[in-house]
Amino acid sequence: MPLRFGILGAGRIGKVHARAVASDSGARLVAVADAIGAAAEALAGAYGADVRTVGGIIEADDIDAVIICTPTDTHAELIEAAVRAGKAVFCEKPVDLDVQRVRDVLKVVAAENGTLMVGFNRRFDPDFMAVKAAIDAGKVGEVEMVTISSRDPGAPPYDYITRSGGIFRDMTIHDFDMARWLLGEEVETVQAAASVLVDRKIGELGDYDSVNVILRTKSGRQAVITNSRRATYGYDQRIEVLGSKGAVSAQNMAEANIEIATADGFQRPPLLNFFMTRYVAAYANEIAGFIAAVTNGTATPTTGEDGLMALVLADAALKSVETGQTVNVAR
Amino acid sequence: MPLRFGILGAGRIGKVHARAVASDSGARLVAVADAIGAAAEALAGAYGADVRTVGGIIEADDIDAVIICTPTDTHAELIEAAVRAGKAVFCEKPVDLDVQRVRDVLKVVAAENGTLMVGFNRRFDPDFMAVKAAIDAGKVGEVEMVTISSRDPGAPPYDYITRSGGIFRDMTIHDFDMARWLLGEEVETVQAAASVLVDRKIGELGDYDSVNVILRTKSGRQAVITNSRRATYGYDQRIEVLGSKGAVSAQNMAEANIEIATADGFQRPPLLNFFMTRYVAAYANEIAGFIAAVTNGTATPTTGEDGLMALVLADAALKSVETGQTVNVAR
Amino acid sequence: MPLRFGILGAGRIGKVHARAVASDSGARLVAVADAIGAAAEALAGAYGADVRTVGGIIEADDIDAVIICTPTDTHAELIEAAVRAGKAVFCEKPVDLDVQRVRDVLKVVAAENGTLMVGFNRRFDPDFMAVKAAIDAGKVGEVEMVTISSRDPGAPPYDYITRSGGIFRDMTIHDFDMARWLLGEEVETVQAAASVLVDRKIGELGDYDSVNVILRTKSGRQAVITNSRRATYGYDQRIEVLGSKGAVSAQNMAEANIEIATADGFQRPPLLNFFMTRYVAAYANEIAGFIAAVTNGTATPTTGEDGLMALVLADAALKSVETGQTVNVAR
Amino acid sequence: MPLRFGILGAGRIGKVHARAVASDSGARLVAVADAIGAAAEALAGAYGADVRTVGGIIEADDIDAVIICTPTDTHAELIEAAVRAGKAVFCEKPVDLDVQRVRDVLKVVAAENGTLMVGFNRRFDPDFMAVKAAIDAGKVGEVEMVTISSRDPGAPPYDYITRSGGIFRDMTIHDFDMARWLLGEEVETVQAAASVLVDRKIGELGDYDSVNVILRTKSGRQAVITNSRRATYGYDQRIEVLGSKGAVSAQNMAEANIEIATADGFQRPPLLNFFMTRYVAAYANEIAGFIAAVTNGTATPTTGEDGLMALVLADAALKSVETGQTVNVAR
Repeated sequence: MPLRFGILGAGRIGKVHARAVASDSGARLVAVADAIGAAAEALAGAYGADVRTVGGIIEADDIDAVIICTPTDTHAELIEAAVRAGKAVFCEKPVDLDVQRVRDVLKVVAAENGTLMVGFNRRFDPDFMAVKAAIDAGKVGEVEMVTISSRDPGAPPYDYITRSGGIFRDMTIHDFDMARWLLGEEVETVQAAASVLVDRKIGELGDYDSVNVILRTKSGRQAVITNSRRATYGYDQRIEVLGSKGAVSAQNMAEANIEIATADGFQRPPLLNFFMTRYVAAYANEIAGFIAAVTNGTATPTTGEDGLMALVLADAALKSVETGQTVNVAR
Repeated sequence: MPLRFGILGAGRIGKVHARAVASDSGARLVAVADAIGAAAEALAGAYGADVRTVGGIIEADDIDAVIICTPTDTHAELIEAAVRAGKAVFCEKPVDLDVQRVRDVLKVVAAENGTLMVGFNRRFDPDFMAVKAAIDAGKVGEVEMVTISSRDPGAPPYDYITRSGGIFRDMTIHDFDMARWLLGEEVETVQAAASVLVDRKIGELGDYDSVNVILRTKSGRQAVITNSRRATYGYDQRIEVLGSKGAVSAQNMAEANIEIATADGFQRPPLLNFFMTRYVAAYANEIAGFIAAVTNGTATPTTGEDGLMALVLADAALKSVETGQTVNVAR
Repeated sequence: MPLRFGILGAGRIGKVHARAVASDSGARLVAVADAIGAAAEALAGAYGADVRTVGGIIEADDIDAVIICTPTDTHAELIEAAVRAGKAVFCEKPVDLDVQRVRDVLKVVAAENGTLMVGFNRRFDPDFMAVKAAIDAGKVGEVEMVTISSRDPGAPPYDYITRSGGIFRDMTIHDFDMARWLLGEEVETVQAAASVLVDRKIGELGDYDSVNVILRTKSGRQAVITNSRRATYGYDQRIEVLGSKGAVSAQNMAEANIEIATADGFQRPPLLNFFMTRYVAAYANEIAGFIAAVTNGTATPTTGEDGLMALVLADAALKSVETGQTVNVAR
Repeated sequence: MPLRFGILGAGRIGKVHARAVASDSGARLVAVADAIGAAAEALAGAYGADVRTVGGIIEADDIDAVIICTPTDTHAELIEAAVRAGKAVFCEKPVDLDVQRVRDVLKVVAAENGTLMVGFNRRFDPDFMAVKAAIDAGKVGEVEMVTISSRDPGAPPYDYITRSGGIFRDMTIHDFDMARWLLGEEVETVQAAASVLVDRKIGELGDYDSVNVILRTKSGRQAVITNSRRATYGYDQRIEVLGSKGAVSAQNMAEANIEIATADGFQRPPLLNFFMTRYVAAYANEIAGFIAAVTNGTATPTTGEDGLMALVLADAALKSVETGQTVNVAR
């Protein structure tokens, strides 16, 4: 029997996940909920699903799993409720912006013996998966140094920034997760520098737009993350891993793979400049991974603990900027 | 109201087109026919369509358009029947292996004021479309020289070769169409050389596996096509256009965009090695183009005439090999 | 004792070879001759050599080898004179524009048991040498198809064109030599198409500026050559060899290996746009190869026969254009 | 009159500079000194120069400029002596491993109104110069973030490591100079992490082999440097600069610009793996820059102050590793 899904939140990312569920022969979209009725109806209608309330979905007997795509400040509560109702839960990152609140949620999940997958879409990108596969196959030997370049085409709206928890918790958090995944060891120390170079107003809101971070594990493996809220040439997402036997890297994705040669030289198109076009395959793979894990009763490919650890690193980076200290996150 | 489709032939390419129809909000898959009942049932079942006979689909009142994915030797007859029954027709290339038979079909289509689109999937590849858009935008000035490299990962089965009409009509035909599309002028003369280098058995069957062709238009524009039935590194599909102001080219598509660096150097994965994975976006765009044209009553992006002209060039290439002459195809 | 050199002709290419001789510890530049006294003095002075007459150099006892850099129509006579005087001879291509005259020269060289190297600089380019080395090491298996793209940044002066023997003998001749070198077999048939697309005046002078050629060996190996007298983006020189196990290619050389990314996309500089900057390493390697061969008494890396064969192919290409026939050059 | 040179030290790098002097029409190599007589004789002989003592060169009336290629611990003393004797001085980095000693030397140079150029060869690499030119031409707008990846093919001998002053003063020092050059502002704070991952013995000698550094200027511009003593694929030297309008980067240099495609994928050769082959053009440009500056009486392209500042950053990086603090180097 296919896994029966309810989706909480019919916004941009809710639509992406709905399509992924609908196109998977192992899943079925049963119901959608959204505070905006028209949004819920539109999404439900497109896939022949019901519109229900959030509570109605969480308590439903004909639903096995829920995907939480509501605003961040509702995640913790909804996860707890859904897990308590016996639903397998996929939740967009972050669980919460407060580490202690996240720990509390994870305790509930553990106590209920529940299933919680926190979405880190990049781990499911085919190219990044190929990088990880090369590492796991021993192609580069022991991992030593990871380099992550991650730059957004442009900064988000100001009101988003004020609710985001800051660049480390909102943007770098993806890179912290990638670094943990690629390093293959937990991070011990964090050093970070932060500037406001893109938009002075971001600084006035108490945030930064240009940061660099160094992570170091106990055995001395290191990762460097470089972030900017502006890359005129598109959504810049690169990873590189140096190991004892060599290095492996993933390239960016352009709008088209063509090249024009003129007297000015050779020109290629800009990069795909939106995360939903850049990571279209990743989002599909991510939900497929959740469906497979729940169906087979195996561990989800990413977990609540992954969400927690990335947030701990984000907090440590901010503390390093504020104190000028190398911050030790080992527990 | 969505365009209502019947699909004739539930094989490999029939499935590709069925998925494209089903995922297009402007179309609906009504029925499927196939000589093998189980194949028709499987495909129809996947999209909630009926299984009917070929005749039943062609004569149906609740079907507006048919997609012909049956064996080549049935195409001409089915096109004529469907057009006479008032259906818009999408047919996989070729209409027929005999030029005169194709001309006869086109006359029927014209007499019935029918719609016939012959599938040349490569024109709908996003990268090749970007090349054409660059030309049309004047980025390279006047087109002068076109270079097409097209190599299959491996030769088809022997029994396919015997039915294929030979490499020029089966494989190069795609490149003839690309050349016409990119040159922007009809070809006047054809020169070709052909060898058997990949597999001696192909020669014994009366075919070639390695060919080069030069096309020349009346104004002197030229295209070179180089084909091989074997490329160990994948499905090699490149185009390059030199114009008075510059050049534009499209690159190949690899299995993954990663690079591994070791003491042996830098290694990238092989190319996608199957036309259905390489051209997945092209097939979807192609059917979308057909749906849009029929719905809007505009000309189809490719036509029966395109199918005819590519076949004329294929015949001329073979004649050039056999006679050692430059063959004039101008009418 | 170092090999003692005289250089005939102190023009552009004479200077290149003088520097190569002077910087080679196994050679010494003894004398320079040029019809223009000031040119000879300037070049001789730069390297502490004498100015002498052409005859003085050819007959000199203190000179072992001569490099002929005079106008094409003097080559044949000077080669014969120098060989008869016992000098080892390096001559820029072509020996002569007339095949019969070249054959006569080669007979004289043979009769005198002389040494004649005809300069085909591209064989000495480090990247092209690496391509050949890969082939010879069996990396691509048996050679099947060679593709050569060779485009000049711009057409030569009109008066040069009238003396050049036409595009096939002046420009494609380098590619004919590359094709022979890379095919590893002598060519049997030649097919060519030619157009005037760059500059109508070139056509009025009886020449072409845009050509494509197909070469085929007895065993069926093929080469395609595509030439244009105009490439706005620089001096375009690419080779690609497909074999039974794979393919090997050499890339172009840009002015600098940088990339600029902006909202317009990714831009790299144009190609080096002059044969003397593009092939600076090749010219040095070429003369070093001549010095080594003469010093060691071994065969020169390129020969008078190579010069003859390339010219035969050029004549055949022109004949193919004029007759519309596939021309057989096998003897 | 050409600038007359004496070279102190006839080792590896002395030979490189001797060749650069000899091939420059504005310079002449007069004398060479080396503790090993045979080395001095060989180098002097190759270019028709004298062998003299160090003191003899410094005091000579027929020498205008000296190039110091002796061991590091002799640099400071020789610079002072040469400057006091009125010679223009080119000295290989570093002036000294001790910052205070460097400051003292610079005072002597200033007091004598002398000329001192400290060699930072990378600034003279044609590709890196093209990056800088693009920045200076405003192609990327205001510089914001600099990324430098610099990895040696392998670690130096253990006895060199013990004398080198450590990885920051020996290897990263080049990157500190590049960062200052590209940032266009002086650095204010330094954060660094260091590990021993390549060879445990390096750690036992008190050094590190894998480091990451973050530099930050007063206005918030940042640079990240990532270093390793091991890159199996060659000498890895990349720079990338992100600005308000875009980014510019320089690629690595391979042994050859070819690509081999097989069933395993696409393979390019490893990188040039020795600094003297990788930076052959840079070394020539560097000495040419010195000759031009001294001849024209203009400022040298790099100065003693550059040498000092890079060393200050190296010391700060080491202090950051040792204390876990962000180190402020602003004076």
